[in-house]
Amino acid sequence: MSSQNPPQSSGNNLDPWYGNYADRTAGLAASEVRALFAVASRPEVVSLAGGMPAVSALPQELVVESMNRVMSEQGSVALQYGSGQGVPKLREQILDVMAMEGIKASADDVVVTTGSQHALELVSKLFLNPGDVVLAEGPSYVTAIVIFRSFQAETHHVAMDEYGMVPESLRENIARLKAAGRTIKFLYTIPSFQNPAGVTLSWERRLEVLQIARENNILVLEDNPYGLLHFDAPPPPALRSIEQEGVIYLGTFSKTFAPGFRVGWALAPHAIREKLILANEAAVLSPSSFSQLVISQYLDTIDWRAQVDRFRGVYKERKEAMISALAEYLPNLSWTDPAGGFYVWLTLPPYLDSKQMLPRAVKELVAYTPGTAFYADGGGRNNIRLSFCYPTPESIRIGVRRLQNVINGEIDLLETFSQTGPMSTVSDRTFSAPPPNLD
Amino acid sequence: MSSQNPPQSSGNNLDPWYGNYADRTAGLAASEVRALFAVASRPEVVSLAGGMPAVSALPQELVVESMNRVMSEQGSVALQYGSGQGVPKLREQILDVMAMEGIKASADDVVVTTGSQHALELVSKLFLNPGDVVLAEGPSYVTAIVIFRSFQAETHHVAMDEYGMVPESLRENIARLKAAGRTIKFLYTIPSFQNPAGVTLSWERRLEVLQIARENNILVLEDNPYGLLHFDAPPPPALRSIEQEGVIYLGTFSKTFAPGFRVGWALAPHAIREKLILANEAAVLSPSSFSQLVISQYLDTIDWRAQVDRFRGVYKERKEAMISALAEYLPNLSWTDPAGGFYVWLTLPPYLDSKQMLPRAVKELVAYTPGTAFYADGGGRNNIRLSFCYPTPESIRIGVRRLQNVINGEIDLLETFSQTGPMSTVSDRTFSAPPPNLD
Repeated sequence: MSSQNPPQSSGNNLDPWYGNYADRTAGLAASEVRALFAVASRPEVVSLAGGMPAVSALPQELVVESMNRVMSEQGSVALQYGSGQGVPKLREQILDVMAMEGIKASADDVVVTTGSQHALELVSKLFLNPGDVVLAEGPSYVTAIVIFRSFQAETHHVAMDEYGMVPESLRENIARLKAAGRTIKFLYTIPSFQNPAGVTLSWERRLEVLQIARENNILVLEDNPYGLLHFDAPPPPALRSIEQEGVIYLGTFSKTFAPGFRVGWALAPHAIREKLILANEAAVLSPSSFSQLVISQYLDTIDWRAQVDRFRGVYKERKEAMISALAEYLPNLSWTDPAGGFYVWLTLPPYLDSKQMLPRAVKELVAYTPGTAFYADGGGRNNIRLSFCYPTPESIRIGVRRLQNVINGEIDLLETFSQTGPMSTVSDRTFSAPPPNLD
Repeated sequence: MSSQNPPQSSGNNLDPWYGNYADRTAGLAASEVRALFAVASRPEVVSLAGGMPAVSALPQELVVESMNRVMSEQGSVALQYGSGQGVPKLREQILDVMAMEGIKASADDVVVTTGSQHALELVSKLFLNPGDVVLAEGPSYVTAIVIFRSFQAETHHVAMDEYGMVPESLRENIARLKAAGRTIKFLYTIPSFQNPAGVTLSWERRLEVLQIARENNILVLEDNPYGLLHFDAPPPPALRSIEQEGVIYLGTFSKTFAPGFRVGWALAPHAIREKLILANEAAVLSPSSFSQLVISQYLDTIDWRAQVDRFRGVYKERKEAMISALAEYLPNLSWTDPAGGFYVWLTLPPYLDSKQMLPRAVKELVAYTPGTAFYADGGGRNNIRLSFCYPTPESIRIGVRRLQNVINGEIDLLETFSQTGPMSTVSDRTFSAPPPNLD
């Protein structure tokens, strides 16, 4: 059974073209918290909401050096249109990047895209008919859910716990959907340092998830923006390192280099790769030659692995700042403790609504993303995604301290209207925090 | 009545995911001449096929200067994600560019995209349901037809003559389609220096076309990549300068600056612009900050109007080389003589098939695009699009001379198999060339 949020209206009477939009456009509604985030971008607000990488940790002289080399050595190529598949040399270099997570592949099967976001859009365009189903972790990446909805497909969520997607829930979802005659087009998953939950799919479960997908003939779409950003031990090898024909793998330079160039890629089974190139050409003719060549030059001449190490150090320090601030200011809540990536998933007391609480948070100069953004079915009401990627450790502490005020204020407010006696604030509450499971 | 080419098969038995693609993917078939073009990219081949701008006419030191300024002044912004609508300052500067073609607008209604190609994809995604109709000149831009087909819409062609789209044909098409109960979602047009025909819609017809669109409540999608590249007098003002609520205007820096950065834009009525931003975010999160800032810096600090003049001079010289070579080597054929842009549309004797002839051309080391690529309905069999934008004047002469050999060889071949007596070769034939109308 489907329990999708109803799409919002796709226009209004002030729009003379109101009646002309495609059916799919009804799924492209503006987020309700969009206006609030515009306010939250003021400098006095500590934003724990966005997912902006710490580009300040990338020495700009390295980028300038790569750019200048590109212009002096390949200027006329950099300024020109390129191929719809991407620069051949960069596709070879992408193999080296993926090899770090155990992937063996041919450069022939790599398609460079305008960020891995665009690969996700192109795969969705190739596969999704109206009414199709995509399976995804619950919670899952907000803009993936938006894309699937924009092609009139429904996202159904597979439960997660601290070891990632729960195989039993995957089996149950498949059985239920098959019994209902639904078409499952793919399983969308972020196995490592998941956005937003921060958890990582264990090795045993990777094998089991792939086995289930194989048995049920379900394509797996593995989105791996954070895999190289582990704080200590690397995550288990990528799903694509285990299974080739059944996995489309998405990667990006947005987190290991910089998002401002918009370069990501898809590694796809041969026949799908053919169609991805055609879809890429139809959408943008070719990804930016300049951006690709700058990244290729950077990978060629700079010790990029050392730079990835530097990023790891930055994010690890910020994650630790966040976890210790949570332990200090919100000791009675529960949260995930990621081993890499950008995000912590916080669980509030069940009687709090994180979206309703957001205006108060912005007033207290802290922003976060409400949990409901990451569910297609209204889940996540008492969850919050906290990002530690962009603010400094000191800002993170300040942000979490403000969040404590926000949450206590919200509890006080509920107490005022409550008929059932006083409720204590979170900093001294003794309610038993639920285990960090994420359903 | 529809007379679309049937889409080619979207997969085969070697593709384990063959049965899983969306219905729309059947429309994304590889061009039949694709493999041939790979051969045609060898340096010994004179390519009159592609539409690559003459980036060698852009002084690279100007680009390097802009890049270095961006990195020193706004490096951390350039490397980061941006907004889904685009950099505010660049959107203001785009108003100056459009003002050169008579357009008054607000930066609020500009959406920056990954080349204007992506604006075309996003508008199509927003508006096209399966079975919808798009009206477009016949011939029209090949990748526009591909996009419309990829959203399962049909392109129906409006006749053109030397003054551009024929209003009477537009009226007839609308009447016929309405009578058949079809839904026309928009009129796609390239009014100035059209691709591929090289003709320009006259001022009187601009008014008439807009009037027809208004009467029939049809949105106009004005694609204007070449408008500033006039050889002598500028073309009539843009359709968007006349009509605001009924026109989406697409522009690009690919021809006035460089395509390697992939920066274009859409100017859309307010309500549509809102949805374009959402669609843009779903597709790529944000267009490249770096690319946008480099172009913004370039517009700010370089005399870009003088550079556009330089491009005009280069293209005018190449156009003249092509026209004089055609007059010398293929005097009995007819062609259009564009007043700007990149393309000449050549009409062969009616018994020749330009697609069938292409392998011979590549063997003779000249490439062109067969006319059928620019029709959704099989038209253009005896037409050729010749591009003068990229090769030097000398190469253009050589290319056209080779084309003469190709055409004569093809006529000889037909003669050999002909039962009806000798046919003369084009260089001394006396058949009466048809007037350069383009239906």
